[in-house]
Amino acid sequence: MSPRITGLHCIDLRFPTSLTMDGSDAMNPDPDYSAAYVVVRTTDPDVVGHGFAFTIGRGNDVQVAAIRALEQYLLDLDVADLLADMGRTWRSLVYDSQLRWLGPEKGVMHMAIGAVINALWDLKARQAGLPVWQLLARMSPEELVALVDFRYLTDALTPGEALDLLRAAEPGRAERTATLLAGGYPAYTTTPGWLGYSDTKLARLAAEAVAEGFTQIKLKVGDNLADDLRRLGIARSAVGPDVRIAVDANQRWDVDGAIDWIAAMAPHDPYWVEEPTSPDDILGLSRIREAVRPIRMATGEHVHNRVMFKQLLQAGAVDVVQIDATRVAGVNENVAILLLAAKFGVPVCPHGGGVGLCEVVQHLSMFDFVAVSATMQDRVIEYVDHLHEHFVTPTRISRGRYLAPTTPGLSAEMRPATLADYTFRPVEHADDNGYRTSV
Amino acid sequence: MSPRITGLHCIDLRFPTSLTMDGSDAMNPDPDYSAAYVVVRTTDPDVVGHGFAFTIGRGNDVQVAAIRALEQYLLDLDVADLLADMGRTWRSLVYDSQLRWLGPEKGVMHMAIGAVINALWDLKARQAGLPVWQLLARMSPEELVALVDFRYLTDALTPGEALDLLRAAEPGRAERTATLLAGGYPAYTTTPGWLGYSDTKLARLAAEAVAEGFTQIKLKVGDNLADDLRRLGIARSAVGPDVRIAVDANQRWDVDGAIDWIAAMAPHDPYWVEEPTSPDDILGLSRIREAVRPIRMATGEHVHNRVMFKQLLQAGAVDVVQIDATRVAGVNENVAILLLAAKFGVPVCPHGGGVGLCEVVQHLSMFDFVAVSATMQDRVIEYVDHLHEHFVTPTRISRGRYLAPTTPGLSAEMRPATLADYTFRPVEHADDNGYRTSV
Repeated sequence: MSPRITGLHCIDLRFPTSLTMDGSDAMNPDPDYSAAYVVVRTTDPDVVGHGFAFTIGRGNDVQVAAIRALEQYLLDLDVADLLADMGRTWRSLVYDSQLRWLGPEKGVMHMAIGAVINALWDLKARQAGLPVWQLLARMSPEELVALVDFRYLTDALTPGEALDLLRAAEPGRAERTATLLAGGYPAYTTTPGWLGYSDTKLARLAAEAVAEGFTQIKLKVGDNLADDLRRLGIARSAVGPDVRIAVDANQRWDVDGAIDWIAAMAPHDPYWVEEPTSPDDILGLSRIREAVRPIRMATGEHVHNRVMFKQLLQAGAVDVVQIDATRVAGVNENVAILLLAAKFGVPVCPHGGGVGLCEVVQHLSMFDFVAVSATMQDRVIEYVDHLHEHFVTPTRISRGRYLAPTTPGLSAEMRPATLADYTFRPVEHADDNGYRTSV
Repeated sequence: MSPRITGLHCIDLRFPTSLTMDGSDAMNPDPDYSAAYVVVRTTDPDVVGHGFAFTIGRGNDVQVAAIRALEQYLLDLDVADLLADMGRTWRSLVYDSQLRWLGPEKGVMHMAIGAVINALWDLKARQAGLPVWQLLARMSPEELVALVDFRYLTDALTPGEALDLLRAAEPGRAERTATLLAGGYPAYTTTPGWLGYSDTKLARLAAEAVAEGFTQIKLKVGDNLADDLRRLGIARSAVGPDVRIAVDANQRWDVDGAIDWIAAMAPHDPYWVEEPTSPDDILGLSRIREAVRPIRMATGEHVHNRVMFKQLLQAGAVDVVQIDATRVAGVNENVAILLLAAKFGVPVCPHGGGVGLCEVVQHLSMFDFVAVSATMQDRVIEYVDHLHEHFVTPTRISRGRYLAPTTPGLSAEMRPATLADYTFRPVEHADDNGYRTSV
């Protein structure tokens, strides 16, 4: 007897990161890193899956409510049946016509679907006894193509083209798996560069990053140009000429303002400029990129679905695609984005940090290396040394590289003590309509 | 003493429209028109504002939760102070850095802000003793520009350009107001064209629409080409050669499929093709438009913010801008979109239908006529004869035209009996984490 889904256990977890200015940037001065955490439970207490959507505090309760709204779609379903065709399972949530109105395919509802889909992948990988990256990397090209929804993509990538890409990368899967298990995957670190840190702390952390083996760091910019130029100089002095320094403006500028600001930073040789403007502004990013060539443009952590990534690639607006583990609708949609990036020959350098984003996203880059792009050239996964201690199987970093996870699952499970200690408990009362309200 | 905000009263309203196939289209086969309804309450029981976000059923509870999450931003604030600078009030919600992570500026959270902003406009207009269209149309160009957030817009429209546009339309405001009050604003009707209706019902309703004075109707298409061609023929026979027939695919096609399908419909002379593909696909829509010239492209009811509208206009992807009353962040953001459309010389023909979308959106087109574009040429507001009876001041249609509302406010208030009869009450229990769950 295959187990059946009995419910989604949802938890509103918030960490008071604003107290230390960890994570501070030009648009997010005081984030409280949070997770709308979900456990997919089944009739078998040993068969569970863990997932979450990452938020930065207020509104995490809304994200939890959105995940909870998905419970009705899964209750009593047969787990083996759900997991046997994850493409169908994905469509059953994303294409529910009534829920779809709330996006479509964007914002709170889409992230909720991502959390649940990721929890199902966690469950599927546990059952297979494999980490998700390896579960994906052992699937056939046909099985991988079946995970992807090609609606709205076919003008850029057809199922046939995706199949060709995956078949071309089939030879060498075993060797690349061995390479990963032996040597890991390159990381870069944003730990030194938060906007709220002092110059002294920046210099110390930048030097430490190099000593630890990182070959790229990232600084937050965009609040004050004089500060940015001074901090870039401090960082360059600390890391020397050979370490790459990326900068991240977190959507701070308009198009023309971005062009001017980036031109002013150009003498400091930023390796890439991340989120110079709105993540929705495909045409704007394209114009910025043209104006500041050859400085690379990077975006993606707030890009809400595969249709937007498709256009960023079609428009030639990005040099670096930054997927995020919990912004889009989970593993399936990220597989689509990896395939799009491979088609256009653009490297994928995932967004990490937050709560558990590094833990989950490492699986996608490692799968990409084994079975899609088949290269690590100019590819790095963001690493931030925050909150890993809350995970049962935290990321392992050594000499500036992510070590490949070997535990079955998606590495998304948090420790029981964390769930107990960081559950957000607002003071509550019910209003006269029966809804709860926070006071 | 100016009153203070005491809370947001939120109601989950759902109407069982799926039973009659009202509202059925190629992507939304069985919508249950719903509203996440909000009443902004104050210390003065006579000082209230009404707003809502429109959804089509499941997930309306999530939309309600998102509106409720905004209460903490307004509690105890001085009403006069909030309303005196609605641009500042808008930014205080849209730019809350933690909430912003849930979009940014899209989906459930953005629509929630729209509902609350619209409720505040309702309140402001009631205090002024004017319908919202007239309240806006009496504001100075400087005051109107101050409502708009120009972040991410300045490469297409600067505050100075917006000011010039509004100043150019200042002469004649009084005459155009009189024109509106005397003769109303042109409407078109989608009532005949729902996909679930029989050919007989289509023919009858199309003929009735012409008899009632409408000069444009709209048909839903995109499910089956043979059906679409037959139904277009039936509609053309019913309305004669001079009535415009628009078609609406509700996002059903990929880019290449859209081009083929539209080419096949071309002999029936569709006046515009609405939502041929994903509302996010600016480049795709632009390619479709190029391929099927001179057939007009229309989109907007699912376009999530002003940055997307900006790009649709910059890319020359749209001939008709379809604003929606509750998709973006309320009146302020729609003023920005009206200004963008005026800058690019593209007519705005709003999305109506659903629950109360006609009631609210008419104010925006009428304001546009008086103070922005200053013309009704090729401009029509969608009209659907559904659910108006639930409103205290429903739209009034005569000879195919919206009569200008004269009651103070935004026409968003629903009748007390409706609030009592259509409140959605799921069976509920609390799980072991204290959250409610629907079973």
